[in-house]
Amino acid sequence: MTDPLDIAGWSCPLPLRNTPNVVLGHGGGGVLTSELIDALFLPAYGDAARTELGDAAVLPPVSGRLALSTDSFVVKPMFFPGGSIGELAVNGTINDLAMAGAHPLYLATAYVIAEGTSMADLGRIAEAVGAAARAAGVALVTGDTKVVDHGSGDGVYVTTTGLGVVPDGLDLGPTRLRDGDVVVVSGDIGVHGVAILSCREGLEFETTIESDTAALHTLVAAMLATGADVKVMRDPTRGGLAATLTELSSAGGVGVVVDEAAVPVPAQVRDACGILGLDPFHVANEGKLVAVVAEADAERLVAAMRAHPLGRGACVIGRVVADHPGVVVARTPLGGTRVVDPPLGEQLPRIC
Amino acid sequence: MTDPLDIAGWSCPLPLRNTPNVVLGHGGGGVLTSELIDALFLPAYGDAARTELGDAAVLPPVSGRLALSTDSFVVKPMFFPGGSIGELAVNGTINDLAMAGAHPLYLATAYVIAEGTSMADLGRIAEAVGAAARAAGVALVTGDTKVVDHGSGDGVYVTTTGLGVVPDGLDLGPTRLRDGDVVVVSGDIGVHGVAILSCREGLEFETTIESDTAALHTLVAAMLATGADVKVMRDPTRGGLAATLTELSSAGGVGVVVDEAAVPVPAQVRDACGILGLDPFHVANEGKLVAVVAEADAERLVAAMRAHPLGRGACVIGRVVADHPGVVVARTPLGGTRVVDPPLGEQLPRIC
Repeated sequence: MTDPLDIAGWSCPLPLRNTPNVVLGHGGGGVLTSELIDALFLPAYGDAARTELGDAAVLPPVSGRLALSTDSFVVKPMFFPGGSIGELAVNGTINDLAMAGAHPLYLATAYVIAEGTSMADLGRIAEAVGAAARAAGVALVTGDTKVVDHGSGDGVYVTTTGLGVVPDGLDLGPTRLRDGDVVVVSGDIGVHGVAILSCREGLEFETTIESDTAALHTLVAAMLATGADVKVMRDPTRGGLAATLTELSSAGGVGVVVDEAAVPVPAQVRDACGILGLDPFHVANEGKLVAVVAEADAERLVAAMRAHPLGRGACVIGRVVADHPGVVVARTPLGGTRVVDPPLGEQLPRIC
Repeated sequence: MTDPLDIAGWSCPLPLRNTPNVVLGHGGGGVLTSELIDALFLPAYGDAARTELGDAAVLPPVSGRLALSTDSFVVKPMFFPGGSIGELAVNGTINDLAMAGAHPLYLATAYVIAEGTSMADLGRIAEAVGAAARAAGVALVTGDTKVVDHGSGDGVYVTTTGLGVVPDGLDLGPTRLRDGDVVVVSGDIGVHGVAILSCREGLEFETTIESDTAALHTLVAAMLATGADVKVMRDPTRGGLAATLTELSSAGGVGVVVDEAAVPVPAQVRDACGILGLDPFHVANEGKLVAVVAEADAERLVAAMRAHPLGRGACVIGRVVADHPGVVVARTPLGGTRVVDPPLGEQLPRIC
């Protein structure tokens, strides 16, 4: 959702004592750390940095309930078709806030950088963080930088923590799920995970599959503005649709029936999953959400989602049932049913 | 400041599929991740975990300005005399909030764990996080767990982000520094850095030097309760006293004169620094703070600090001067002066 990075054109605005790579001293809290902040992070963040990125940010009062979310991003490779760890770190944390119904306000960014990482790579990541924050209208207010020995870390890890405000009266949670509620997804499933995996495994398809990373808070705002009785929202990232639906069904004490034919899986994702023996329901997504809504409100919710650029592929994929609480069942196109198991552990290592 | 960990007695309350070590799947967002949260993190956090540690926490409204701070902790070794990365991660972030004058309310914890890390080590760290949070009265409200390939990471990195509330009317910052203001330190300098270093380098002294990690928010509350005109506070962690004082002097556009003989450096720290060729002013501290206060209020501020268990060693170490803005000068015991340089980079690798 952000402009493509101008990779070739990236250059460090001020020479960092002329070192082309990050050294241990950049994390030492001394002059080199200050130079890294002044010469790399602040210019890369641009207008998104509303402070000098000190140890703590003092922020104006916020009226209403607060939402707090944190996520560490360790994706490999750090740059992939459709984005980088930078956008992912911003959008992923914004989305965790958005799924709680919160409007995101502030982000804190903490970097753990392996010694030897090139300044150019770090700069591209910081630029992506800045661009994604600006695009989402979220301020980067505080941060931290640590450098670990060569061999102790692996490129750059970014931990983003978001603070948002939850609209008054909003009540979301799986315990609100009832028999007959409708399960909606905002678009194609499996895209991000397959984009990362094909990049990592050197798979080539006729056209490149690009990550669908995006900040979903404006889509959520459009959904809530309809007044539809949205019961719960989730972004099906790690563990995919299967993990999300089984978590909701288990936490809500309800069953879920998914119409497999209704789940939008692009042909390329289906092909890649076929080759690799993966279940598209287990593949990670970014920039997609699952919402459960009262039956009476489903139609207008889907209509509102389709009117938003990030919800154009929105559709109904299933229903909440009173039967088989804690169990998600998929109706296959041939009329059979199968139990949708949550993934046990890692299917695609380090995808977000 | 927390009870010593019962290391020998630590055991995982529920077997995590009987694996003694963390595997990649524990970070996959599936069943293993849920089990790790339910069987390791939640029991270790105990009462400090006020939620189920979901992707985002929804928190009650807070009246007043907010403070937000984030810090990644990558200290090696992870366990050292006087504490572990767990206490450090909690206390360090609380202290960054406290230095902004904020009362800490909530913490988010994000773990990046190297595959192969023992469950016992991870459990000890999580127990230390829980104990430190309980001791400080701060709630652990949300978190994240990622696992990286063996060889990609190094033990456990913990990123803690804190949210606090700033008392109305409090105005802190280096721009408030004026000629004649008094510089106060809360106790012995250099202890944490030397504790880590002697542990890492196998140095032995007659008695063990223990890290002074502690949460300083109650000391800060006692200081502010005096009504003294505190201008600015800092915890001199990475970069030590030298980095803190030069940052303040530079940001405030004032000079600072330190009376070297007045700075409390324990004999063991002095000896260790002598052996290693380090300047105690450059060595990292935890659980110590520097405050600058209006001259008229210095005496009662120091008295209030000395009445608090974490400020018993409080004393005046210097003054703000209008001369040589941006430069910190130390008066040596022999009556000479030297410029206190900020450290360039890393003196002690990875001490917090």
